Amino acid sequence: MIIPTLQDMLTARKRIAPHVHRTPVLTSSYLNGLTGAELFFKCENFQKAGAFKVRGACNAVFGLPDDMLEKGVATHSSGNHALSLSYAAGRRGIPCHVVMPRTAPQAKKDAVQGYGGIITECEPSTSSREETFAMVEAETGAEFVHPYNDPRVIAGQGTCSAELIEQVEGLDAVIAPIGGGGMISGTCLTLSNLAPDIKIYAAEPEQADDAYRSFKAGHIIADDAPVTVADGLKVPLKDLTWHFVSNHVTDILTASEQEIIDAMKLIWKRMKIVMEPSSAVPLATILKNKEAFAGKRVGVIITGGNVDLDALPWMEK
Amino acid sequence: MIIPTLQDMLTARKRIAPHVHRTPVLTSSYLNGLTGAELFFKCENFQKAGAFKVRGACNAVFGLPDDMLEKGVATHSSGNHALSLSYAAGRRGIPCHVVMPRTAPQAKKDAVQGYGGIITECEPSTSSREETFAMVEAETGAEFVHPYNDPRVIAGQGTCSAELIEQVEGLDAVIAPIGGGGMISGTCLTLSNLAPDIKIYAAEPEQADDAYRSFKAGHIIADDAPVTVADGLKVPLKDLTWHFVSNHVTDILTASEQEIIDAMKLIWKRMKIVMEPSSAVPLATILKNKEAFAGKRVGVIITGGNVDLDALPWMEK
Repeated sequence: MIIPTLQDMLTARKRIAPHVHRTPVLTSSYLNGLTGAELFFKCENFQKAGAFKVRGACNAVFGLPDDMLEKGVATHSSGNHALSLSYAAGRRGIPCHVVMPRTAPQAKKDAVQGYGGIITECEPSTSSREETFAMVEAETGAEFVHPYNDPRVIAGQGTCSAELIEQVEGLDAVIAPIGGGGMISGTCLTLSNLAPDIKIYAAEPEQADDAYRSFKAGHIIADDAPVTVADGLKVPLKDLTWHFVSNHVTDILTASEQEIIDAMKLIWKRMKIVMEPSSAVPLATILKNKEAFAGKRVGVIITGGNVDLDALPWMEK
Repeated sequence: MIIPTLQDMLTARKRIAPHVHRTPVLTSSYLNGLTGAELFFKCENFQKAGAFKVRGACNAVFGLPDDMLEKGVATHSSGNHALSLSYAAGRRGIPCHVVMPRTAPQAKKDAVQGYGGIITECEPSTSSREETFAMVEAETGAEFVHPYNDPRVIAGQGTCSAELIEQVEGLDAVIAPIGGGGMISGTCLTLSNLAPDIKIYAAEPEQADDAYRSFKAGHIIADDAPVTVADGLKVPLKDLTWHFVSNHVTDILTASEQEIIDAMKLIWKRMKIVMEPSSAVPLATILKNKEAFAGKRVGVIITGGNVDLDALPWMEK
């Protein structure tokens, strides 16, 4: 296990700068009033390819040595990492092979192909994804860029909170959604080095609460195929992300499906931004745990905006 | 007819500064590629009360002399002016009476009441709105703040393009939706004085194209109760807005309902912002008239973001 360092994050920041946005931080006086906290939303939904994952993907792709370029890169992903790796590979002009669950939103499949990614579909379970991927990897010889359990990816994701602490002074806490733990690990990497007084919270759907249960148990607990509207958060922790979560996270908070959908709609309505269900989990948990955040300056990472506009969760029966 | 001056706009800018946002300008490399133009979206959907109309409303309300405060203000509006005047009146602590069509989106009615506005409903036609309003005005004695045919309102709306030309250098054109013509008139007021080389285009739904027909005919043509998804653009020009439109607008372009809905969805999908159908009319007309904008630097005013998330136009049967 290679644990990425602060220097890896700083190198990543320089490497990816030409390929990603420095995303804006938005505030809402309405949501501040509602929560009793001062919330600073880091809007990675405005990021290239629509999500923070482009940071880690660009770091991996643009850090590849020349002799590995011809065979390209490969990954499995429930969506945004697939988009992001395809985007990064397209910018470097190398092939990108992607294993995606057949149930992933059509908008994400279309976008992967729009960036030139080559899709192989699998069943929507961790086991099927891993089996299918092993086959693709063997056939193509492409370099595997894991969506989160990869030091290059975590170093890239860490650039997000490096920007955030430059954009907002005096933060007391940062909260981000947790699935596999890539964003949270990058946040831990950066903040534990550069701003160790800032508390780090992870937010997770109750219906995919493997990270929460792992955190309480003290070891990784993985679920196969959890069901949640927050489709970016279904994957389990792995050794590298568990390292960061177990060492640097203050707490993991959970929210129900309805609470997530309500928080998502509230952000759309009040902040006028399009973001994914996964990105609403932090606000949903803040609204349930107001006492933990009242009076605090809290960075909230809006992780992505790639939502299927024809199947919004509050429109479904 | 009192025509507002550059000095009125400058006074408005100072007066409303504590009450409104300086809204951001966003760009999209995807939409630039699609149109062949360089588009700069002035995001008034992020404005206080969710629309540019708060600029004019705050200018009128905060410019009221003390002896007129007790009876408050009154207006008729298809939505955003109602919200904005209620917001402004609430901040000054005076009453606000609003006549709204009963068919206005529920989200807008709720928001007017949330800001303390007092609603009287009318039928969705110009004639019913004016009759109902005359009654309310007589009963309350409140100061009428017309949604657009008012020099205080036009001077306030002109502050938007004053910001835009500070935020983006070297614009060749600015395009905004046209309903009654308040935003376009404010844009004309500011740009004809401060940046007379910038061409001003107005964008209108084909199904509510009274401004287009007026422009071609050389005199005001008013429709009663046009039907369009762009619910902010159903009202006709009046003498003051006609003055600006007829003197300073380069052209009025129109788009069909489907073109407006497609452009709206495209902006949501690619730019990750929530905005109203009315605000999509400019992009819809740019996509139809690419030759007029190719290679140009074009300011596009996104006028508002108060949409009913439970009744998005592409979800309707």
